[in-house]
Amino acid sequence: MSGPSLHRPFPIADVPQWDFETDVAVIGFGATGACASIEARAAGADVILFERNSGSGGASGLSGGEIYIGGNGGTEVQQAAGFNDSTEAFTTYLKMAGGPCVDEAKCEIYGQEALAHWEWLKRQGVPYKGNFLPGKHIEPMEDDTLIWSGSEAAKPFSDFAEPAPRGHVIQFMGWGGGRKLVDILEQRARDLGTQIEVDARAVALVEDAGKIVGAVMRIDNQHRFVRASKGVILATGGFVMNEEMRRKYCPLTFKINDPIGDKDDGSGINLGVSAGGDAIHMDQFFTTCPWTLPEPHANGVFVNINGQRFINEDCYHGRVSRSMIDQPGDRVYLLLDSAHYIEPFEHARMSIAGTGEDWEEVERELEMSEGTLAATMKFYNDHASRGQDPLFGKQEPILQPLDQGPFIALELNFETSYFSFFTLGGLKTSADGEVLDRTGEPIPGLYAAGRCTSGLPAWGHGYSSGLSLADCTFFGRQAGRKAAHGAV
Amino acid sequence: MSGPSLHRPFPIADVPQWDFETDVAVIGFGATGACASIEARAAGADVILFERNSGSGGASGLSGGEIYIGGNGGTEVQQAAGFNDSTEAFTTYLKMAGGPCVDEAKCEIYGQEALAHWEWLKRQGVPYKGNFLPGKHIEPMEDDTLIWSGSEAAKPFSDFAEPAPRGHVIQFMGWGGGRKLVDILEQRARDLGTQIEVDARAVALVEDAGKIVGAVMRIDNQHRFVRASKGVILATGGFVMNEEMRRKYCPLTFKINDPIGDKDDGSGINLGVSAGGDAIHMDQFFTTCPWTLPEPHANGVFVNINGQRFINEDCYHGRVSRSMIDQPGDRVYLLLDSAHYIEPFEHARMSIAGTGEDWEEVERELEMSEGTLAATMKFYNDHASRGQDPLFGKQEPILQPLDQGPFIALELNFETSYFSFFTLGGLKTSADGEVLDRTGEPIPGLYAAGRCTSGLPAWGHGYSSGLSLADCTFFGRQAGRKAAHGAV
Repeated sequence: MSGPSLHRPFPIADVPQWDFETDVAVIGFGATGACASIEARAAGADVILFERNSGSGGASGLSGGEIYIGGNGGTEVQQAAGFNDSTEAFTTYLKMAGGPCVDEAKCEIYGQEALAHWEWLKRQGVPYKGNFLPGKHIEPMEDDTLIWSGSEAAKPFSDFAEPAPRGHVIQFMGWGGGRKLVDILEQRARDLGTQIEVDARAVALVEDAGKIVGAVMRIDNQHRFVRASKGVILATGGFVMNEEMRRKYCPLTFKINDPIGDKDDGSGINLGVSAGGDAIHMDQFFTTCPWTLPEPHANGVFVNINGQRFINEDCYHGRVSRSMIDQPGDRVYLLLDSAHYIEPFEHARMSIAGTGEDWEEVERELEMSEGTLAATMKFYNDHASRGQDPLFGKQEPILQPLDQGPFIALELNFETSYFSFFTLGGLKTSADGEVLDRTGEPIPGLYAAGRCTSGLPAWGHGYSSGLSLADCTFFGRQAGRKAAHGAV
Repeated sequence: MSGPSLHRPFPIADVPQWDFETDVAVIGFGATGACASIEARAAGADVILFERNSGSGGASGLSGGEIYIGGNGGTEVQQAAGFNDSTEAFTTYLKMAGGPCVDEAKCEIYGQEALAHWEWLKRQGVPYKGNFLPGKHIEPMEDDTLIWSGSEAAKPFSDFAEPAPRGHVIQFMGWGGGRKLVDILEQRARDLGTQIEVDARAVALVEDAGKIVGAVMRIDNQHRFVRASKGVILATGGFVMNEEMRRKYCPLTFKINDPIGDKDDGSGINLGVSAGGDAIHMDQFFTTCPWTLPEPHANGVFVNINGQRFINEDCYHGRVSRSMIDQPGDRVYLLLDSAHYIEPFEHARMSIAGTGEDWEEVERELEMSEGTLAATMKFYNDHASRGQDPLFGKQEPILQPLDQGPFIALELNFETSYFSFFTLGGLKTSADGEVLDRTGEPIPGLYAAGRCTSGLPAWGHGYSSGLSLADCTFFGRQAGRKAAHGAV
C-alpha cells in the first residue's frame, strides 16, 4: 500500500531484489558505526557500513575526541599522574552521572571493561601523548591527554566516589580531535575489509516474521535493498537536528539555540521504534556554554535573576550550564572580580551586564533589589575567605572570594548566548547492544549504540565530557560483536 | 507465534471468532470512557464499553469532580461572581499552563468550546450549586461550585491573561465528587444504550491492513474478540501505577511516594504505541502536597535547604509542589508565624522541623548557616510589609509579612511527606481524538482521550485543578463523536 518508511518495517515479501547482501549492515559512520564495523569484521562477519553523507564523521567528527576511561586501577596515564582509579569509584561515578535515568547494567560493564577498552583503542592506532593536564579545561588547547572532564572532585559526587580525572583526549593539537579519531577508526574498519557505501540514507528496516533482516537505503534517488543475514546496527546519532521530534519529546531545548550535531535527525530512533523498540528518557539533553573560558572565569560565581546562587560552580561546566536552564527567566549572571576577569571568549556571546566598585553597585546596575546579589556575594565572600561554601559545598582551589574590585557581571542569555546542546534520549538497548522492545525483550536482528540510544550519558545534569564517545565506542563495539555472533 | 499482546497488534486473520460485534469499542470506564460512549451513542453508533474493574470509576472516580471551564464571557457562575471570562484570556491561560509541552490546537478548540461543554455537562445531569467560593482551596469542603483552582491570579500568568476562577466543582458535600460525576455520566451512557462489560481487560488491538478494527479482551480468563467496525477508543488513564514505565519515561517521580490512580498501568499507551502511535512528553507529571491546608498556611513562605525562596507561593499549590521537587536535597521548608500557624493537616505528613522566637533561632534549629533563612525572611518581610515581592512577584492578599513570633518551619520531605502524583505524558492525539502516528497522521480506527494521551494538562509546572477532567470529558466526547462518524 505504500513505500518504505522510517516508521514501518518493510515486509521482506515486498523486496523486489537484494542490491546488497552481507552479514551485518551498519547504518551511520561516526565513531559508533566505525567501532561496530571493526568488531563485526574482527568476529568474521561480512559488514557493509552505510553513511548518508559523502564520508565518515557524524557528531563524533565534530567532537573533541575525548573518551571517559577509568577503573581497574587506572590507565597508565592516570597512574603516572598519581590516580589509582578503582573500578568501584569509577562505576559509582558513572551511576551518579546517570542520575534518575541511569542504566546500571551499562555502568557495571563499562566500569569493568573501560581499561580493556583503552587498550583496544590504542591497538586501533589512536595516539595519546600520555600526560596529565591539571586545571579546569573544556578541552586541552594543545595535545595533552588526561583532563578533569566531569564533576568528579565536586559535591555531591566526591562524597561517594573517590575522584580521578578520566577524560582521555586523542593526541591532536588544539580542539577538534574527534575528526582524527574517526579517521583512525575509519582506516581500521577499511583495513579489516568493511565495505563502505556513502551517500546512502536508511529509509526503512526490512522485517521477516518479527526479525530484522535488512534495510532499505536511498542511494542515487533510488531504493536499494540490503540483506543483512545477521542483523542491522543503528548508529545514526540523536535527534537534535529534528525540531519536530524535539518539540514532542524534548521541548525544553527550545530555550536555547545552538544544536550540535551532523544531520542528527533521529532517524535511527524512529527506525528502532518502527520495529517495536522502546525510546526512553527522550526529554534529556546535554548543554553547555563555555563559561570556564578563559580559565580564570572558572572561579566565578553564578546567580540567577533573583541574585541567588544555584549550584557549586566547581562541578562540570555542562552540569552548571544545565542548571542554568532550570532557573527562572531568560538569563543568569557570571560574577567576577578584577582578579579573575579577562575579556570573555567571543564565541560564547556573553555580554557585560553590569559593573561596579562594589557588589552593591553591580546589583543596582542589574536592577536587582537592594540586598539580593550584594547579600549573596557578602555571604559567599565571608565564607569563601575561610574556605567554606555552606550552601553548595564548592571547594578550593576554585572556591575563592571575589573581593577585588571593580566587579563585573557577565550575562549568559539563553536566547542569545552560545548554549550548545544535543539530545541524550534514545532506544533502550541491552548492555550488549540489542534493541529492546517495550517488554525488555531483544528484537531479533536489531542492534544499536551511540546517541540513537540512551546510554552512559543518560541525564543532562550528570553529563561529563567523554561519556558520549565512551558510550559510542564501547557499546558500538558491543553491538558489532553481538550482531556478528548472535544470529538466531 | 504468540498470543495477544499490548505491544503488537493482533492480526485479524488470527481471530478465531467474534465474541462481540459493535461499531465503537471504548476501553476504560472513567469520565473519559463514559463521555466517549455518550457521544458515540448520541451519534447513532452501537457502543460497547469495556472496563477491567467490576465497575466504573478509574482515576476520575477518585478525583474531586472539578472541571476547568471558562471563556466566551464565562459561565453563569463566573458571571454572577463578577468574572466575564474572555475566550482570549482563557485560551492564553491554557497555553501558558501547557508550557513547553503545549498542544495549541487543543487549547484553541477547548477555549472556544468550554462554555458549550459546560452546558452539555449540565444536560447530562451534572448538578452545580452555582455559587463562588473565594479564597484558597484545594477543593470546597462543602458543596460550592466555583473556586480559584490554578495560578490565574499569580505571576507570570496574570501578566498575560486576565485572571478568573475557572474550577467548576460538582455539587457534592465535601471532597470526592468525582465518584458522583462518574456515576451520573455512567447512568447517562446506560440510558443511551451503551453496552457495558466489566471485569474485561484489554490485551491487544486487532488490526486489518493498517486499520484498527477491534480489540482482544481478557474476560473470565479467556480471550474474547471484539469487532469494532468504526474503531476503538482508548480511555485507560496514565501510567502512574506502572513502576517499570515510570523508570523508563518518568524517573523523577521516584523522588516521591504517593501515586494516585486506579490501575493506571499505561496499558492504553502501550496499545496505542503498538499500533504505531506516538507517546509524547512522557517525563511530565503532576504532583502536590496539600500544604495550603489549613488555609492560613497558604500565606506561608517556602525555602529550600539553603534557605532560598524558589517561587511565588500564591500560585497553584501543585505548581509550588512541582517546583519543590526541583530543589536540591530531599526536603523543603514551609515557614509560618504564629498568626498563620495551625496544626497541619495530618494526611500531609509534614513535621515541625524548627521553631524559634525569631527567624535567627529557626535558622539555627534547622542547622542552616547564619544569614541564610533569617536573611531571606528579613528581605521578604521588609518588602511584604510594603506589599512587594521583588523576587517572585507574589501578590496581596497572600503576600503578608511573617513577623509575629514564635515562628515555625514545617518540613515537607519528599521521601516521607504526602506528595501525590500522576503522569501527564501519553499518546499524541488530534484535537478530535484520533491517535496520531509518528509522522502526525491518524491511525485509522484508533482514538484516545484522557490521561493515556498528552492533552490540556501537558506540563507539570502548569497544572491547574480541573484541567485533567476538562481534558477527559471534552476530548472523550470528541473521540466518541469522531469514532462514530469517522468510519473509513
